[in-house]
Amino acid sequence: MTACGAPVASRAGAPANGTQRAVVYAGPGRAAVGDAPMPSLQTRAAPGVLPRRCDHGVIVRTLATCVCGSDQHTLHGPGAAEGMVLGHELTGVVVETGRDVERVKAGDVVSVPFNVACGRCPNCRAGRTGHCLTTNPARPGATYGMGEGFGGWAGLQAEYALVPYADFNLYVFADPDQARERLLDVALIGDILPTGYHAARSAGVGPGSTVYIAGAGPVGLASAVACRMLGAAAVIVGDFNRERLEHVRSLGFAAADLGGGDLAGTVAETAGVPYVDAGIDCVGVSDAAVAGAGADGATPRAAALNDVIGVVRHGGAISVPGVYPAGAPGARPPLGVWLGGIWSKAITVSTGATPARRYQDELATAVLLGGVAIADAVRATAVPLERGAEAYELSGAGASRKFVLTP
Amino acid sequence: MTACGAPVASRAGAPANGTQRAVVYAGPGRAAVGDAPMPSLQTRAAPGVLPRRCDHGVIVRTLATCVCGSDQHTLHGPGAAEGMVLGHELTGVVVETGRDVERVKAGDVVSVPFNVACGRCPNCRAGRTGHCLTTNPARPGATYGMGEGFGGWAGLQAEYALVPYADFNLYVFADPDQARERLLDVALIGDILPTGYHAARSAGVGPGSTVYIAGAGPVGLASAVACRMLGAAAVIVGDFNRERLEHVRSLGFAAADLGGGDLAGTVAETAGVPYVDAGIDCVGVSDAAVAGAGADGATPRAAALNDVIGVVRHGGAISVPGVYPAGAPGARPPLGVWLGGIWSKAITVSTGATPARRYQDELATAVLLGGVAIADAVRATAVPLERGAEAYELSGAGASRKFVLTP
Amino acid sequence: MTACGAPVASRAGAPANGTQRAVVYAGPGRAAVGDAPMPSLQTRAAPGVLPRRCDHGVIVRTLATCVCGSDQHTLHGPGAAEGMVLGHELTGVVVETGRDVERVKAGDVVSVPFNVACGRCPNCRAGRTGHCLTTNPARPGATYGMGEGFGGWAGLQAEYALVPYADFNLYVFADPDQARERLLDVALIGDILPTGYHAARSAGVGPGSTVYIAGAGPVGLASAVACRMLGAAAVIVGDFNRERLEHVRSLGFAAADLGGGDLAGTVAETAGVPYVDAGIDCVGVSDAAVAGAGADGATPRAAALNDVIGVVRHGGAISVPGVYPAGAPGARPPLGVWLGGIWSKAITVSTGATPARRYQDELATAVLLGGVAIADAVRATAVPLERGAEAYELSGAGASRKFVLTP
Amino acid sequence: MTACGAPVASRAGAPANGTQRAVVYAGPGRAAVGDAPMPSLQTRAAPGVLPRRCDHGVIVRTLATCVCGSDQHTLHGPGAAEGMVLGHELTGVVVETGRDVERVKAGDVVSVPFNVACGRCPNCRAGRTGHCLTTNPARPGATYGMGEGFGGWAGLQAEYALVPYADFNLYVFADPDQARERLLDVALIGDILPTGYHAARSAGVGPGSTVYIAGAGPVGLASAVACRMLGAAAVIVGDFNRERLEHVRSLGFAAADLGGGDLAGTVAETAGVPYVDAGIDCVGVSDAAVAGAGADGATPRAAALNDVIGVVRHGGAISVPGVYPAGAPGARPPLGVWLGGIWSKAITVSTGATPARRYQDELATAVLLGGVAIADAVRATAVPLERGAEAYELSGAGASRKFVLTP
Repeated sequence: MTACGAPVASRAGAPANGTQRAVVYAGPGRAAVGDAPMPSLQTRAAPGVLPRRCDHGVIVRTLATCVCGSDQHTLHGPGAAEGMVLGHELTGVVVETGRDVERVKAGDVVSVPFNVACGRCPNCRAGRTGHCLTTNPARPGATYGMGEGFGGWAGLQAEYALVPYADFNLYVFADPDQARERLLDVALIGDILPTGYHAARSAGVGPGSTVYIAGAGPVGLASAVACRMLGAAAVIVGDFNRERLEHVRSLGFAAADLGGGDLAGTVAETAGVPYVDAGIDCVGVSDAAVAGAGADGATPRAAALNDVIGVVRHGGAISVPGVYPAGAPGARPPLGVWLGGIWSKAITVSTGATPARRYQDELATAVLLGGVAIADAVRATAVPLERGAEAYELSGAGASRKFVLTP
Repeated sequence: MTACGAPVASRAGAPANGTQRAVVYAGPGRAAVGDAPMPSLQTRAAPGVLPRRCDHGVIVRTLATCVCGSDQHTLHGPGAAEGMVLGHELTGVVVETGRDVERVKAGDVVSVPFNVACGRCPNCRAGRTGHCLTTNPARPGATYGMGEGFGGWAGLQAEYALVPYADFNLYVFADPDQARERLLDVALIGDILPTGYHAARSAGVGPGSTVYIAGAGPVGLASAVACRMLGAAAVIVGDFNRERLEHVRSLGFAAADLGGGDLAGTVAETAGVPYVDAGIDCVGVSDAAVAGAGADGATPRAAALNDVIGVVRHGGAISVPGVYPAGAPGARPPLGVWLGGIWSKAITVSTGATPARRYQDELATAVLLGGVAIADAVRATAVPLERGAEAYELSGAGASRKFVLTP
Repeated sequence: MTACGAPVASRAGAPANGTQRAVVYAGPGRAAVGDAPMPSLQTRAAPGVLPRRCDHGVIVRTLATCVCGSDQHTLHGPGAAEGMVLGHELTGVVVETGRDVERVKAGDVVSVPFNVACGRCPNCRAGRTGHCLTTNPARPGATYGMGEGFGGWAGLQAEYALVPYADFNLYVFADPDQARERLLDVALIGDILPTGYHAARSAGVGPGSTVYIAGAGPVGLASAVACRMLGAAAVIVGDFNRERLEHVRSLGFAAADLGGGDLAGTVAETAGVPYVDAGIDCVGVSDAAVAGAGADGATPRAAALNDVIGVVRHGGAISVPGVYPAGAPGARPPLGVWLGGIWSKAITVSTGATPARRYQDELATAVLLGGVAIADAVRATAVPLERGAEAYELSGAGASRKFVLTP
Repeated sequence: MTACGAPVASRAGAPANGTQRAVVYAGPGRAAVGDAPMPSLQTRAAPGVLPRRCDHGVIVRTLATCVCGSDQHTLHGPGAAEGMVLGHELTGVVVETGRDVERVKAGDVVSVPFNVACGRCPNCRAGRTGHCLTTNPARPGATYGMGEGFGGWAGLQAEYALVPYADFNLYVFADPDQARERLLDVALIGDILPTGYHAARSAGVGPGSTVYIAGAGPVGLASAVACRMLGAAAVIVGDFNRERLEHVRSLGFAAADLGGGDLAGTVAETAGVPYVDAGIDCVGVSDAAVAGAGADGATPRAAALNDVIGVVRHGGAISVPGVYPAGAPGARPPLGVWLGGIWSKAITVSTGATPARRYQDELATAVLLGGVAIADAVRATAVPLERGAEAYELSGAGASRKFVLTP
């Protein structure tokens, strides 16, 4: 936790201190829109927020801030504090810069990657910004809006937000007008597109690859788009939700209806062979499976991952953007991941939080210069910030949409 | 040179021994269609051909065989022998298999990569099939139809052809009907598409990359298509030929008119910055430049490469599919390559013949499953084998077409 | 299964057909030295051996053949057939070559990698010789001396052995005298050194790395040597066996006494920090742990792997040469691998059988030119072939030695 | 150029403002020890130094500062200003920290990499610290003590020095006492060891590699040590200087006497084959060759590089730490680099300034934990700072030593 002691620098265009509108945690499972403290380069202790002095930070006025699947984890998990601002994906305009900020200027349109990173520790210097050693006293890696266990940084679903280490963290759009015109697309390079792209790259996807993706939610769809960017020849996305599968097909990908139990058949039909080169598990730990599993725990909680293991070829690779929380070794009941399947096929497995900043330069170029239409693919849907709670509800109920809040 | 001594195996569907029609070398600068020996698993010495016993080989009946820019080098170079069959790109049907062939079967539709490789030497085992240590007694690396300096293997622009080490060399299409339906496309995975793809990969092209390609001939166009497959956000192709540039634009790439001298301007306008991430020199040694250079040799013979060096950013990468013949160190006049530019920018340079076989599995999948339309991009144009000489003339005159000969 | 149908080629220096001495499977848990059929390029069906015609093969006279930990798996597993020749690591002299063999000559001193590979399928061409698609009708990947489930190839612990696809599979020593002089060292490039090297490379070990290796048997020791070859700054090897730990220390590596429960302490003391960059699990499925675990299965069968996960840093990598048999997804009891630990640390995991042939060129050079002393490190101990059964007993009892049988 | 405008932070242990002793540029070809301004976080304009405000910087008291071959370039080149402090390699103790510095503390023992980098621009974030886009207004990449063309940063051969962006740039030794005990070794991780290591890695050196290194000066020796760290089986170093060659042999490397003209013979004898896997050109542009070449320029100025090209195998790789200044495309006389040799062998060439910071963590660990003895290898020789001019003279005269100045 940083505390340098000196007062903040010049301010331009930001409202007076006081409160702002934001989506906040309102108790287990509940998000609400309410008043929250205005951000400042000198953060005071608040619910879920550690006090810090950030002369290397900037204040950003929000243009777009997204609702993410992992916001639901925060809503239902143990780490949130009542009144805490939620959210970790933001595109906005810089309105104030700390005295130690050199590259970013007031007026810049910027994208904020969801990892809070310092740019100075060994992990950040090696591009592993998802596991920064500075920004979270509790463990490597910090995220906005998830409480003290994730570093104690205020969330980004608000009118204004603080971004520390701004010169390192922020992607600055060279042409602000172009960014504003493609706002729904560029809003997605803070989290969902980097996450899908990291997943596709980590799974070794390249020209001619065939890929199976478990889960047709926004991460699965972004992974599918990333596979296409990387030249994949065939992409199959599996889910139980018919509406999601229909959308998958409308984008030109193959869809496997897992409820129908025909994953193997869909793979064989699509790829021409009964296996794929690469697999991506966008589901993570299968709580639903466990819920229905009864006392014997017969369904492994790593069911989606085991599906992926089953269809990837010998010598293939798997990435796992879906979350498997740390827990403890030998936790009961065990997840039941099919290690023997991994081993006998000599599969390589990549896991963990995406270092979003690492990919933003190339992804912004791919979107703005290369025309990648990520917003349409994940059904990005603009909603006023004031209706943020509604977006949370729809998102929690499995709506096949990616909600983008606009103040 | 192999000579095992035993007689050949079973034969199915091949014509009786005798002669066949083929494009042959007819003296300096001249290709002609004429009679040539039928290929056999036991090759007899012939112009440009070394005698060999190939029980590991197959005889292929030609469906499509392409004319390549490097055929012009053969036509104008010192290595050809009168009557030698030309060509090194072939798609066809297997009609006879040697007794040591296990995987390839008569009736298979196959693609022949242009490198003749053994699959057993250290280079082949490491995927460097362009520099096989077995198939050319003169030096590492062999090619069909280029004479004894390239290994002494008969060319492929003929009704029938011998392919040695068939189990290793041949790409077998899983669905022969599908291959026949897309014949013009699949005909290009023997040389031009792998060459462009190797160039793009070696130059580090990936999602969001910006690329400058020198030369809008078939190699340049295939490189551009490969860059797009790899996710490049902006591709600029430079040439002096207006018709070629028009075609470049029609494919959705940017075109730099080198005659107009505005490479830098086109780069800046297209990429938004005055440099690109990657460069590809598809021109090679600039004989034209030399021709016009006068006694002082003021124009470097590496002019296209120097252009590429000039526009690639610090820390970028360059690949060089264009040919720079070995010559000798310190040859006069020197090529004048701008080494200082390479060094001061810390550019990485990759060169040399493409190992085509390494890429055929993924490229075939990209074409057949992924829909890559390489034939349209390089303007593949089917011409009867009997009119092969004409195709050579048009090709030598700079026609913006890739000629595919069909018997 | 190959069957080409023609008679075999010339023979030089091999004994008349008949029988030879070999180590054979003699019932559950028992190896014996007895008579076995002489190998031939035309293999007849025999216990654990499928009939095949191998004109691409050679007959090798054994100079040294090793006993491996996985031989114990064969002895105790379900796949062996009585009378089957065991073993999969051999160095010897070529005495007969099939007619399709070009590069290998009678009299060559050669090393046989333990994977039986064809050199022609997509996996072999990509260097994944551990998962050859040709040599095992049952599944990808074949090994000598393990029965029909592993391809049905006769074992190598015999006076003579058949090696198919000899041009591709065999490493030929350029200087046979030098190889004979360093016989105990070069005997180990067929399996144990490549396995350790693959493990170290797959775990991302390089100059300055710190590494924890679970298991101080031959694979663990070879992995430690490989880590040193790759420049590792600190290597810690963990085991329960005091004699093995003493040997670890004598080689200059750090030793963690797992019985003493001080893995974390040893890591902190050796590396200066409480974690390592890389981990290698040389133990595999922990049957012993299960045996002692009681009815509740409280000790995960992936205990060694979980130890490794526990000490590897965020963003590190793990390789798993230790075997986890395929079984089925959701097998009971589950292995209990700590997936949450892997995920939360964003660890990359590489698994599976080593493609030994891929590494033999560089490892032979490292041993013969670079002076790597692998035999001393794994305590290679020469034993006459006739005493092979004894070597199996000592090896099965956990002797801290690598037995090398010499006819 | 940065200018933030606020006053500097706390100061501990630094002498009062005024002057200090330093090695300074004293006219063409001349270094002298004299008085120079004390460094400050607010740099004033001075010869070769641009004014800057560096709240992200620290002041370091020198323990050891090295003399480098490229200091001679500065001495003889056009960019130096009279009175400018020279030098770019320093190990020292932090005595003052700017207000934006968080990780580095007063009292830390640190190594300063020779590149001045910001840690915030796209190049730094990608690890390309040798081409930082922030610290040099003239072009990408900055170095201390080389004048305005290199960014205008004061040199490090002084009692005290300013290091900007200290949190990013400095390697902090975890154990300061250990660093002091191995001072001559750790003094070399600022430049010479990273440079040799970058060269070895960029040339693809790994276990079992054979390597030819042109030039037995400190860079060549450090490259040889790095090759050994990476597992190279045979390393041949070529030079004309007999004393240097003797030292090469004493370290256990092979030596090729270029004056004797027997490079090819030494390679064949050492590697067992007439080529090597990798080559490293530590010489750069051959001014000596040019000097002796007469009016016809018959000896290429890239003579050392051409030697390297000549002995590297097909498919090998070359790195070029030796400097080839940018100049202009088509400069007269041309360097005469043998591009045809590179192309025909499909060699990959890596060039440019080393990003030293990228490698310091692993190299410090290799030296301190792994025992790499770099000081002995490059004959590091401690000399009082006051005798710095003498060290320059000896170094310029080709002394086979690496001089380390100690205040």
